[in-house]
Amino acid sequence: MTGQELRRRGRARAAKLAARGVAGGKGQAPIAPGLLGGRYLPLSDHDLSRIHAAALEVLQRVGMADPTPALRDLALAAGAAINDQGRLCFPGSLVEDTIAGAARSLVLHARDPDKDLEVSGRRVHFGTGGAAVKVLDPADGRYRDASLTDLYDFARLVDRLDNVHWFTRCVIATELSDSLELDLNTAYACLAGTDKHLGTAITAAENVAPVIALFDAALGGEGAFARRPVCKLHSSPIVPPLRYGADACDTIFEAVRHGMPINAITAGQSGATAPAALAGTLVQTVAETLAALLLVNLIRPGHPFIFSNWPMVSDLRTGAFSGGGGEEAILNAAAAQIANFYDLPSGVAAGMADSKIPDEQAGYEKALTTALAGLAGANLVYESSGMLASLLGCAFESFVLDDEMLGFVLRAVRGIEVTEETLAVETIAEAATGAGHFLGSSQTLELMEKEYVYPRLGDRSTPEEWQQRGGRDIRARALARVREILAEHYPVHIAPAVDSALRARFPIRLPAASMTSAGGRW
Amino acid sequence: MTGQELRRRGRARAAKLAARGVAGGKGQAPIAPGLLGGRYLPLSDHDLSRIHAAALEVLQRVGMADPTPALRDLALAAGAAINDQGRLCFPGSLVEDTIAGAARSLVLHARDPDKDLEVSGRRVHFGTGGAAVKVLDPADGRYRDASLTDLYDFARLVDRLDNVHWFTRCVIATELSDSLELDLNTAYACLAGTDKHLGTAITAAENVAPVIALFDAALGGEGAFARRPVCKLHSSPIVPPLRYGADACDTIFEAVRHGMPINAITAGQSGATAPAALAGTLVQTVAETLAALLLVNLIRPGHPFIFSNWPMVSDLRTGAFSGGGGEEAILNAAAAQIANFYDLPSGVAAGMADSKIPDEQAGYEKALTTALAGLAGANLVYESSGMLASLLGCAFESFVLDDEMLGFVLRAVRGIEVTEETLAVETIAEAATGAGHFLGSSQTLELMEKEYVYPRLGDRSTPEEWQQRGGRDIRARALARVREILAEHYPVHIAPAVDSALRARFPIRLPAASMTSAGGRW
Repeated sequence: MTGQELRRRGRARAAKLAARGVAGGKGQAPIAPGLLGGRYLPLSDHDLSRIHAAALEVLQRVGMADPTPALRDLALAAGAAINDQGRLCFPGSLVEDTIAGAARSLVLHARDPDKDLEVSGRRVHFGTGGAAVKVLDPADGRYRDASLTDLYDFARLVDRLDNVHWFTRCVIATELSDSLELDLNTAYACLAGTDKHLGTAITAAENVAPVIALFDAALGGEGAFARRPVCKLHSSPIVPPLRYGADACDTIFEAVRHGMPINAITAGQSGATAPAALAGTLVQTVAETLAALLLVNLIRPGHPFIFSNWPMVSDLRTGAFSGGGGEEAILNAAAAQIANFYDLPSGVAAGMADSKIPDEQAGYEKALTTALAGLAGANLVYESSGMLASLLGCAFESFVLDDEMLGFVLRAVRGIEVTEETLAVETIAEAATGAGHFLGSSQTLELMEKEYVYPRLGDRSTPEEWQQRGGRDIRARALARVREILAEHYPVHIAPAVDSALRARFPIRLPAASMTSAGGRW
Repeated sequence: MTGQELRRRGRARAAKLAARGVAGGKGQAPIAPGLLGGRYLPLSDHDLSRIHAAALEVLQRVGMADPTPALRDLALAAGAAINDQGRLCFPGSLVEDTIAGAARSLVLHARDPDKDLEVSGRRVHFGTGGAAVKVLDPADGRYRDASLTDLYDFARLVDRLDNVHWFTRCVIATELSDSLELDLNTAYACLAGTDKHLGTAITAAENVAPVIALFDAALGGEGAFARRPVCKLHSSPIVPPLRYGADACDTIFEAVRHGMPINAITAGQSGATAPAALAGTLVQTVAETLAALLLVNLIRPGHPFIFSNWPMVSDLRTGAFSGGGGEEAILNAAAAQIANFYDLPSGVAAGMADSKIPDEQAGYEKALTTALAGLAGANLVYESSGMLASLLGCAFESFVLDDEMLGFVLRAVRGIEVTEETLAVETIAEAATGAGHFLGSSQTLELMEKEYVYPRLGDRSTPEEWQQRGGRDIRARALARVREILAEHYPVHIAPAVDSALRARFPIRLPAASMTSAGGRW
């Protein structure tokens, strides 16, 4: 059969299926959050054990500078020591016992329980990270400072994207200079925009209680957040190389006390704040992420903790961070493998394009890094939506583009199911000796929506069809989709009465008028 | 240290390194052809053995339709049988023995012996495939019919791209209607444009001898090609499902007789000419590629043969081929794993974007598919450069874009070396307790050019820098690079005297005037 004949018959078949209502049936989705990765293992078992041993050696022999007094006291009581340089050194046995006693799994709660994420084993989820200070303005395609309204708009955009499984505040509301106002309004904008699981940073220890109070007030009263923590803390308690940061450590103490899951990010940058050798970068970032694990588990053993080892790459021509190359891709895939070796809930970073706009560079940088992270079995792939400009910028159209790309990546993560049925020997025999094609076979009809992910923005037409439709690139189509969603999707994730109460009690800066289509931004 | 400080120090360091001539030293390249893949294994061992067993069952029980008389005679003599439907059935033992006796490795010769490719084990190479009929015109961004001059220009462009390891004729010279003229001129344009290993199709059995005569004449006289075959045959002897194509089989008989390596491509399309279940598609395409292996090894045991199992995907909404999704990526990665299971030289297909232009869609479609193929350890990744529009189109700027992307993919394939040196414990100890950074460490200086792949077209500047430089996307920069190369790179891969002799003997249609900068196309 010629390609043209196949195409003609295919169209006829698709029309029949649509008439029968086959498409889009429930429970048939080819992809879902939490598919199992781990078929890509960048490191051999031997390499893995050497990196682990070297990380233990670093923690024991070199140790960590600048522990806070509270941490030092806990650590010394647990068997750590201060060396003659004043550094806190952890014996290997303490590190190993801490790994053994740490939380093996956790649920990241969402206000909509259907969107809860089970973080364990090799389950793969994609979500956002933070935090850009610039936004690519959809009106003129130029970068401008990010605002609170942007954050709210990004949240409600993500609310509609199936392959962005949680929402960490992706931009900083740069107009808010007061740190408490920033923290409260960031939490509010996230809550208002989406009922998926959230993530945010908290600037200072004293801001933790007010932020939790806001969550409690939004969620139904005191203690509501601790019962179902819908937001995790993003914190970087380590300043590489091998130094605790006092502010972040203090904030973590407070957050643990309030029952907030901790996502402790370690982001040593190869050749700048970590060794230029990729293996060495892993040794250091593993040691540092273990130092964060020790911190949290010394405060409260078994507290929900995400082992977020995000090894970063420097472009050594400039010293600047680069997120899009092959080195970044394998480093974070290896980080996922190492966390799986420890059987700890993992976070890595991928999708951090260096490109400033959604062009082909952004596409291959994002696909290479997110695919390797997912296939390696990272539990939480941060920064995988919306980010551009080596994390300095964020773009609306990138969110919907990344959502589509992540659908393909998730399909690859799902892999190939091998059963008597899918091996399809009888189907092959019938087609080969009968019709000579599979377009009408019952298996084809049944699997059409189960086995395949179809693009919504991606173009699969012929050059002629595409030219006739105006020859637009995918960025233009993505921007149209953004406008479509944001012009109509103003979800009510905070009930009006609750909203009034929040506005009475907290300095909410997001105008209520901007939270309806009357705002007229889109 | 702040990011800004790091960046400033990094720039100072880069200037010092450049002054010392560190950059770009020989033998320091971070990537090369033939890096070892295979750390991504999409199928479990058990799944692999089930697919193999099912493929054997298909060959034994269903068999192949329409064997040519010559093939049938050889097969029957070797133990095959014709069933009551007239299909040629191969017993499992014959298939297994054929796999065992087939060529385990081969050298793909190039006229420049430095560019020979050793195809064996899990060595990964990227190259082009065929064959588009449309070219995205760099002048107006619209598709037009491909020409012989385009083919020559693509060949000399690839001649300058390090990460395109061989050149298979990527477009059809659509203005040539005579099949012998097409085959001869295709061979000539490839030879004239690049001294890398080549690949071409030959339209009919009777064209093989004249094409080989042209190669012999270009390479130094009769027998020269057979001694160092610089070109492999691309052929599709199987018409899926499970049918031999007579013309291609006859051409292969001739090509084997002339010592031409055979790249036998099987491209069953899921849901159309192969089952909709991905596992079933693999069963069928494995059976079909084995049927091609049987064909060639029955003609001449151990003849250089590339196991090119290219499982293809249908978009079942239309029945049309789609090259860019997650299903295509895992199918071809699995195909590579299966060929490695047989320990046969493998070819797969990746980089076949559905997008019509080099936009973000093209970027993620190409990266996802080429990365998975490379990581799975495919020996020869076809179609990985230049292709758009689900193989219907080819673009100049895509070649240079893909070359850059494949550099990142190759870096990921290379992986992370773990040695006492790269684990860098002492380097970490020194930096952590001393300078507080690694910018000046001897390891950083030494590894700057060995460990990292730097983009040439990709932008890693800040949003401000990028905007100041005009805010161009990577496609614009790629097109500028194409013009730069093609305006000056007119290689003399055929000496003038040889060229005159070729033109006297064969109907060469590429005007000599178009093979110098005087041609004025670029």
